[in-house]
Amino acid sequence: MFKVGSKCGEARCGELYTRHGVIQTPIFMPVGTQATVKGMTPTQVEDVGAQIILGNTYHLNLRPGSKLVQEMGGLHRFMAWDKPILTDSGGFQVFSLSELRKVREDGIEFRSHLDGSPLFLGPESCYRIQAELGTDIAMVLDECPPFPCDRDACADAVKRTVRWAGEFLEHARTDGFLERGHHVFGIIQGSTFDDLRQECAADLAAMDFPGYAVGGVSVGEPEEEMLRQVATCAPVMPVDKPRYVMGVGTPPQLLKMIGMGMDMFDCVMPTRLARHANVFTLNGLINLKNERFKNDAAPIMEADNYTCRHFSRAYLRHLIMAKELLASTLLSLHNVHFYLELMAEARAHIEAGDYDQWSAAWIARYEAGDA
Amino acid sequence: MFKVGSKCGEARCGELYTRHGVIQTPIFMPVGTQATVKGMTPTQVEDVGAQIILGNTYHLNLRPGSKLVQEMGGLHRFMAWDKPILTDSGGFQVFSLSELRKVREDGIEFRSHLDGSPLFLGPESCYRIQAELGTDIAMVLDECPPFPCDRDACADAVKRTVRWAGEFLEHARTDGFLERGHHVFGIIQGSTFDDLRQECAADLAAMDFPGYAVGGVSVGEPEEEMLRQVATCAPVMPVDKPRYVMGVGTPPQLLKMIGMGMDMFDCVMPTRLARHANVFTLNGLINLKNERFKNDAAPIMEADNYTCRHFSRAYLRHLIMAKELLASTLLSLHNVHFYLELMAEARAHIEAGDYDQWSAAWIARYEAGDA
Repeated sequence: MFKVGSKCGEARCGELYTRHGVIQTPIFMPVGTQATVKGMTPTQVEDVGAQIILGNTYHLNLRPGSKLVQEMGGLHRFMAWDKPILTDSGGFQVFSLSELRKVREDGIEFRSHLDGSPLFLGPESCYRIQAELGTDIAMVLDECPPFPCDRDACADAVKRTVRWAGEFLEHARTDGFLERGHHVFGIIQGSTFDDLRQECAADLAAMDFPGYAVGGVSVGEPEEEMLRQVATCAPVMPVDKPRYVMGVGTPPQLLKMIGMGMDMFDCVMPTRLARHANVFTLNGLINLKNERFKNDAAPIMEADNYTCRHFSRAYLRHLIMAKELLASTLLSLHNVHFYLELMAEARAHIEAGDYDQWSAAWIARYEAGDA
Repeated sequence: MFKVGSKCGEARCGELYTRHGVIQTPIFMPVGTQATVKGMTPTQVEDVGAQIILGNTYHLNLRPGSKLVQEMGGLHRFMAWDKPILTDSGGFQVFSLSELRKVREDGIEFRSHLDGSPLFLGPESCYRIQAELGTDIAMVLDECPPFPCDRDACADAVKRTVRWAGEFLEHARTDGFLERGHHVFGIIQGSTFDDLRQECAADLAAMDFPGYAVGGVSVGEPEEEMLRQVATCAPVMPVDKPRYVMGVGTPPQLLKMIGMGMDMFDCVMPTRLARHANVFTLNGLINLKNERFKNDAAPIMEADNYTCRHFSRAYLRHLIMAKELLASTLLSLHNVHFYLELMAEARAHIEAGDYDQWSAAWIARYEAGDA
């Protein structure tokens, strides 16, 4: 169930009810690809304000396997995370990571990027894997076209995506998955073709999914094109359901998409950048390897997280230069907190009714980049 | 100041007072070589019961430099650790890590293992560096002979070690270091030569150090030889001062040395083994990579630490196989907790008066190794 609360222009606050609690939207979901948000304990993830994290069907199915996770009590118990989990369908990873993939009308043949073993993912197996993981929000199997792509190939991919979405939802319904309080979200594809995007969105909307996602963005297209695709989809996405943009983005991109009425986001950026010494500030990204931070006694920024409460830039730089594990932990913790704080502020400004002015000012300061 | 409390045979409990609080001995000191206990936040180190950690003069002097640490408020503030810190002298690292070292009568010339730059460490500079770090317990500069070593060369090394110890202590006294509540420990060298060990111990005892260490063990000699050296030194180490065995050891070795009247230990073993998937149990070490743990829903052992309270062996094995950073953190946390719990139990059994029986039974179970 999803309740829309305050609105401010297209931006809105909402509450999404799951088997593991209520999620306040707009929200960012830290990525826990392999049953761990990289470098952070579940307690640290919770402490920085995460309400929901993302798990990865493709990776978890290859290793350790969804059957094993089920045998261990499900993904929540396995990784000691008692709040909501969304699992992506694996469609994106099949296209970006695996080898020798072959799209059939009933699913996708591919080879594992770990050991080359032949695998098949269809709407039913994709549903079963996510059901075995015990996810709160399952994503349908989709076909994610590359950028750029041929229009005819894209139209075929959209047809399959819509058909697979229907089959996936049918399996979930038959199995009592929705009745037990799990959600299934449909995924809108269509690459850069506005009419294909809108047809796909309309076809999915007719199936009455508990939520809808914009997929196939952030696959190499320019930023304006990405934002344009989200803007294209927004008017044809049901207003009473959560709207999720998959795999994005930078802080300004998130604020812009919230302004278009989007509710949920996930991205590896905060943790991946952290592992490469990059940290977010209100004035843009900084790279702590820089010599100028060598004796900088200030924290990354004035933020109420463990890293900024305890450690100077000089210390963090030392950990990075000494290749200490703790660097990844402390920087990831800060970056994830930064994203979650940004979402909390966005919610507050939607409720206060000044979202557009606030977000424009926030973006201007961030992009001035005098960090 | 050091107060000896309960005794049980040679084993004893004690309280060592420092500028950052009281340490209950016998105690294990987790190693924080580069201003971090590898893979753990200071909060995690504190949560598993650490009372004091070790920092490394050699490493911290090379990177980030003791002057920088001083400028950042000292090592405690730099690394956000508000409990006691002991820093080793760097003597051991000069002999084990650096290149082209040349022992002079006034100190050691060597080249950095990081960039080959020429450096010199003498009793005064060794004191200055540790004073700049702001350590609670400084270790004198010593010359650590290899194993095996020539008797004449060892005798010369012992002479220099004793002279440097006196000079180090003099610099510390002149500087008011002891008056301000910092400690300086002397280091007994002498390799496997009992008379040299005992002469060295007696010469150092005459200087009235606040504490004494057995150095130059665990440098490649057989375990029996190591234990024999500690037994050789024990009777000539002042009973009213803390006794520290440097760089050791396995849990049974620690229990045996406590039985000889030793009070303090440090070792990289718990964190280094953790990074190679090895964890301690009451029945010996286990390697979590082993296939038999694949679907093992039990914790590593029944222990009251974050890792064992929340995670199964199956999950930890998954993290290891997936090369996730969190594996090092969770395994290190368990292993360090294991060592600290062992010390807490040892203290309890010394107080209860059954230390020898308890430690013999503990060692027998551990070495039966049916983990």
